[in-house]
Order: sequence, then C-alpha cells, then structure tokens
Amino acid sequence: MTHFPIDETHRADLESWVESAHEAGTDFPVQNLPLGVFRRAGTDEAPRVGVAIGRMVADLGQAAADGLLADAPAAAARCGAPMLNGLMALPLDARRRFRLALSRLLRADTAEGIAARGRLALVPQDEAALLLPAHVGDYTDFYASVFHATNVGSMFRPDNPLLPNYKWVPIGYHGRASSLVPSGTPVHRPSGQLKDEGSAVPAHGPTKRLDYELEVGFFVGRGNALGSTIPVAEAGAHLFGCCLLNDWSARDVQAWEYQPLGPFLAKNFATTLSPWVVTMEALAPFRAPAWARPAGDPAPLPYLADAGDQASGALDVTLEVHLSTAAMRAQGMLPARLSRSRLADLYWTPAQLLAHHASGGCNLQPGDLLGSGTVSGPEKESRGCLLELTWRGTEPVRLPTGEERRFLQDGDEVTFTGRCVREGFVPIGFGACRGVVTG
Amino acid sequence: MTHFPIDETHRADLESWVESAHEAGTDFPVQNLPLGVFRRAGTDEAPRVGVAIGRMVADLGQAAADGLLADAPAAAARCGAPMLNGLMALPLDARRRFRLALSRLLRADTAEGIAARGRLALVPQDEAALLLPAHVGDYTDFYASVFHATNVGSMFRPDNPLLPNYKWVPIGYHGRASSLVPSGTPVHRPSGQLKDEGSAVPAHGPTKRLDYELEVGFFVGRGNALGSTIPVAEAGAHLFGCCLLNDWSARDVQAWEYQPLGPFLAKNFATTLSPWVVTMEALAPFRAPAWARPAGDPAPLPYLADAGDQASGALDVTLEVHLSTAAMRAQGMLPARLSRSRLADLYWTPAQLLAHHASGGCNLQPGDLLGSGTVSGPEKESRGCLLELTWRGTEPVRLPTGEERRFLQDGDEVTFTGRCVREGFVPIGFGACRGVVTG
Repeated sequence: MTHFPIDETHRADLESWVESAHEAGTDFPVQNLPLGVFRRAGTDEAPRVGVAIGRMVADLGQAAADGLLADAPAAAARCGAPMLNGLMALPLDARRRFRLALSRLLRADTAEGIAARGRLALVPQDEAALLLPAHVGDYTDFYASVFHATNVGSMFRPDNPLLPNYKWVPIGYHGRASSLVPSGTPVHRPSGQLKDEGSAVPAHGPTKRLDYELEVGFFVGRGNALGSTIPVAEAGAHLFGCCLLNDWSARDVQAWEYQPLGPFLAKNFATTLSPWVVTMEALAPFRAPAWARPAGDPAPLPYLADAGDQASGALDVTLEVHLSTAAMRAQGMLPARLSRSRLADLYWTPAQLLAHHASGGCNLQPGDLLGSGTVSGPEKESRGCLLELTWRGTEPVRLPTGEERRFLQDGDEVTFTGRCVREGFVPIGFGACRGVVTG
Repeated sequence: MTHFPIDETHRADLESWVESAHEAGTDFPVQNLPLGVFRRAGTDEAPRVGVAIGRMVADLGQAAADGLLADAPAAAARCGAPMLNGLMALPLDARRRFRLALSRLLRADTAEGIAARGRLALVPQDEAALLLPAHVGDYTDFYASVFHATNVGSMFRPDNPLLPNYKWVPIGYHGRASSLVPSGTPVHRPSGQLKDEGSAVPAHGPTKRLDYELEVGFFVGRGNALGSTIPVAEAGAHLFGCCLLNDWSARDVQAWEYQPLGPFLAKNFATTLSPWVVTMEALAPFRAPAWARPAGDPAPLPYLADAGDQASGALDVTLEVHLSTAAMRAQGMLPARLSRSRLADLYWTPAQLLAHHASGGCNLQPGDLLGSGTVSGPEKESRGCLLELTWRGTEPVRLPTGEERRFLQDGDEVTFTGRCVREGFVPIGFGACRGVVTG
C-alpha cells in the first residue's frame, strides 16, 4: 500500500513563528498545514491558495509569487489558482516536497522561516472568505458506516435492516456537485413531495423532516483514465486529503422518492464542506487498523483486499456534531453537543471506497469528492444524524433551553468538528463545517 | 409556457447553397442547424463551435472571427469556445437571433448566404473529430417512460412492478459526468461484483449482461440560483436542446448493487452522447401534446402542471436502435434494427423533468444534462434496451447471420438515430450515437 511516512513535519517539538499556532486546542498547529482557497472578506480579490496556521491564513499565492516556495516549484506554480485541483493532481513526491516547504516556511527554527517572518502575507481567518477548496467535477456519496446502515434500515425495513449486498459492496451513489457550498452558507429549507403516513396522496411543500448527516469528504488526488482501474494497494496515492461534509437531507422527501433509483431531491439542495483540506500527509500519524469485522462477516473480495490497508488504512478522526438554536443564541448559550463518533469505525477504508469506485473503469479526476456516508458508531451518542439520534423523531433530543428537536427547525445552526489525537503527537483538527437553516 | 415560434427558418421551401443539405434522408437540412464542437480529425487544432449542414460542418469559430455572424454578436462571441456552454447560457432572444443568422448564412436566397458562399469554412463531417458538445457540470438521469419502468419492475418485482411513487414523482437520480464520451468512443466491458442467482456469494469479473439504454439527453440552457426554483411554465426557456444518449448498463452489476441507493458502477463506466445538439428552436414544428395518461392516473401536482405544457410540451422524435455484430460486418451486412420508439410517449415532458429537478432549490447550470431514461413504448418492438427486448435474456433476439443476442457481445456496435417528421415540414434528424463494445 502507499506509505505516508512520519517525518520532521510531524515532530511534536516544532515551533512556529506564528504565535496563534501554539494556542491550546488549535486545529491548526504547524504539524497540520491544511490547504484551502480564500480571499480577504469583503473584497473582490482573486481567490488563491492558502494554508491555515493558528488563527491565520498564510497567502501561498503571494508566497509563490515572492519566491518563498522555491523548494517546491511544481506546487508553487499552482498556488495562484482559485482552486486546489492543480495541487491535487501532483504526484506524491511533489506533494511531500510541498508539505516540507510549508513546514519550514512557518517554523521558527529554519532559515526559511526566519526569512519568511515579516515577508509572508498572513490574513486572520476571521477576515478571510474561505471558499470551496476545489472544483468538484463529480461528487459521490458512500454509505460506509454499518451502524448507520443498520439503524436506518431497521426503521425503513424492520424485517430486513441490512441488505444482503452491504457487507460485500461498498454501497455508494452519485451526488450533486453544483450544490456543494462552503461552510457558513445558509441552507434554505427545501420543498418537495411529501406523503404523510396516513395520507393516500402526496402533497408538495416545505420538508418537515430536515436533517444533517455527519460525514467526511475524501478528495481525489491523481486520477485514472476511463476504462482503467486503481488497485486497492495503490489507492492511497490517489487520495489527496479530507474535509468535513454535511449531507443535508430531507427525510420525508427521501422516504417517498428514493425507490428504486436512490435519493435525489432529498439531498441535492445543499451539501456543506469545511474549507480546509487536511492532507493525507498530515494524517500520517493518525492512521489506524481497518475496522475489525465481526466473526462471520465475509472477507473483502480480492479487489478490495490489501494487507497494508487492513493494517493501517483507516483514519482515527473523532467527529462531533453541535447544535445551536436561535433561542440558545439569544440566551448566550454555547452550542450543545449532539453526538461524537469515530471515522475509523467505518466498514470500509477510504482506499477501498476509491478502489471500488474505479473498479469498473470509471475515471476519477483530481478534485472529485467521495463522501464517507453518515459516520455513526455503535452507541446511541455516536449516531451521526437526527433520524438515528431521535429514532425517526420518536425520541426527541432535549436541549439546555428546554427545547426539543426531532428534526431541524429554522434558525438551527449545525456545526461539525473533527480532531486527531495520538500520544506523542500534537493534535490536529479540521476546522468547522457550519450551516444555519433558513425558512 | 415558453413559446417556440415557427418562423422563416422552418419554411419547407428553403434552399441551402451547401448541396448535401438537400440529399434525401439527410438529418441536417438547413431547417435543422444543430450545434456541436469539432476540430479537423488528426490535428491538434483548438476545438470550436460548428453547425451541421448536410454532410459538412460549418466552422462558426472561424465565421465569427471573419465577421460573418455580426447579426448575432452575443452568440458570435461564444463560437470560438471549445464547448457550447456559453451559447447555452444565452437568453432566448439571443438564441433566436443566432438561429436566424445561421439560417441566412447557409441559405441560397439571402444576401448573407451569397456573401458567405466561398468565405465560410466547411469541413466534411467525416474529416472532423466531433467532441462532447458541452462541459457537463452535472448529469442527471430520469426514468420517464412508464413502459420501461413497468417492464423492468415486473422482472425485478413481479408482484409490484410499478412503485407507488412513479405516477407522482418524476423519478431521477444523479449520474456520472466524467465518463460521458462522444459518439464513436469504444466502450470497454466493465468488471464488477456479480452474484449469480444460484450462488451464495458474489464474485468480481467482467459483466455478462452488458446492455444499452436508448435515451434522449436534454441540455440545460439558462440556469437558476441555488435555493430558487423554476416554475414548470417557464421551464421550456431553460432547455437548450437535445441529443441522443446511450446509458450503457451492466445488468448483473446493477441487480446486485442497486439497493438501497440506486445504480452506481453499473452505469458509470461510459455514457455515449451524439455530437449534435438539436436546439429547442429547431424542434418547434415537432412539438406534441403530453402523453395522455390513462383514466385513473393522478393529475400532475400543481408544481408540475401547466396547460401549455400539456398541450405541446412533448417532442415528437422517432428513435431507433440498430445493432451490428462483428460477424455481420464481416459479411457486409447492414446493421439490424432492434427497436423503434417515440420520445412523445414519455410519462413526463422535458419541462416537467426540469421543473421537478429545480423544485427543491437545486441549482441547474448551462450545459447540465438531463437524460430521459430509456425510451420504450407499449409494443414489444418499441422496447429501448435488451433487458426488456429479450425479457431478461429469456427471449433472445435473432440476427440476420443466425446469431442470437441476450445481451451485448464484444465487437457489437450499437447505433441510435432520431428523426422528426411532420407533414408540411422538412424532416430533421439527430445524427448517430454510436459505440462498439470492446473486451
């Protein structure tokens, strides 16, 4: 399998000359170096590539123009672009060189860092407009949590919760690329055909069962040609990095429309992405064994089986969902945590999802996005959407204001976070994936 | 509803100075004027817009540069592009002005035509590489033939062939944009997970049930903003034109993978488009009443109901499928016609499909592609795929060589054609949508 080495960029004792990179709990220490696309808020500047460091964005478009990235020329030539696709297409060695150059640029102990201090343009993140990080040619959504699939299946098909293909096929479907939006974009409550359980006929109106889905998005790096495949052992090299993804869902629309061809309008009105792409290189210390299948489950078919991937192909990311209602904000309350789950609990690794996607010859392209599907775990508090958490609305969630939620109300703000923690390493995070529901 | 007037460009007595535009049976008389993107074959010329006329492509990129399209300046400015998206985004009046300018440029009776003769660059179609006509941001596939849905449903769910939502919801799902290929591109037989009916476990290997699906693709013209909708009465103005579309399908992969989220690898290995986009303006004489629903079927919900659309929102296009095997070609035989069906037999009009797609706020963009779904009719000879035609392989098709087909074999070439015929008008056609299966 593709090896992502732990190297000098991951050392716990690194110091950055950007002070906020050392604040307790920051998602963006100098060991992270996630990439995004930004402009200064309220301007019509050309968007360009930036890297998050502490509370700041370092302007890599400017840095490249100023010759500060001369040690990574292939990457530097792509930092003035309004999307990460060019960087995503780079081969692994150029990606590694880029990460090393960024690390040295932002560290206090290197000649590059000493030279960059005062020359490198930094923009506070709260003064930046953080845009979609990539042009997503195609967005695919998987269904890789067996806990989510079992929970949802048991609501819709009590006798037959998990379909016979689930443990063989990494189930996925194509999603809508045009309605991907960056974190912070308000989400308009969609209308659709709804058929109440007691009603003989459907009606068209605003969804009454608006939900979030806690997911991680995997960006494709190098692609493959139409008609070619990507062996699972090589799939890691085709993954560029991750973000958080909210696959907003209208459950009543979904229940009525989804057979036989799958979800459509129930999920294509908005999908929110967090702005920072945490690279596979940054995640090297946080790799984990593939989820241990229970005895009796089938082994993956050979085209999905790789010993290295089984040993360390999962990613140990702790994910959380927080909810803030309009009333909570009016009373100055902090958001309430609804759930916490682990990305490593997926039934399939990211490499298996990608290898499966290409296994019939479908061409993947740099910037394509693969959603994990809702990340749920075995416990109730690890259920990654309200449909599961409130068991289809039958067990409402109680909030600190006394409010109850079965599904989302207008004014509700949903925030996802993701953190990687491992003994001996500095924790890194994903930043927030946030959206407020509007009527 | 949006009115597409019949005007001077549709007159049956028009004469073109391009002689092959008058050949009997041509798809491309001067009344058609379909748009595409081309370069001369075997060159690395920049692709640009062309219009099909008889056996020729008129080079509109060159024509615009030479000032021959001065009467349609907005369109002319977009003819040097390597895709039609810019033209597709134009408002209706600019589209009409463009069509009128093209008509006059190619006619023998106009000052523009007399001036163009000898100045307008013409490339024989068989010396042109005809490329994908548009950059397709998102490709959606519908399921709009009730005959197809009923046939397929009765094979997979004999007790319950047509699901309860079918007559209410224009069923559709998102497809794969990256694997859209232009007519003539060989189609590689995909591998996938297959589970034979007698087998307890699936295996991975080449599909044994490769099929075509006869569809029409509708290109979106002007788009809508995320969160906004497109009323059905205005939907016609958001449709730019049509092509033929082969939604190649691996039936064994599909049967095993499609629940609960719909087809995925079974259909994302290749989707073939014909190169010429027949505009909605060209189709004005060939509009037809919406398909008459049987008594007892529900009326469309208000958001899908428009009297004008019901009166003339369908398109009267006759579609045919032809098959040529390697043995047939070796023996010099012509392709055999497998089926003939009518686009006007769809349960939903194109405007209804588009209005439904945007009804939850999903943003459509110029160049987005909506597939009709397999166009089947009520008779056996109007079944638009082999799954239906051979009834899941149980009634093989017999070919002139004595060969039988249940599903496609390597070397089989599938060709779709489409023609519009109406008394008092010159027939127009779509050109061919063609692909050969390779092992």
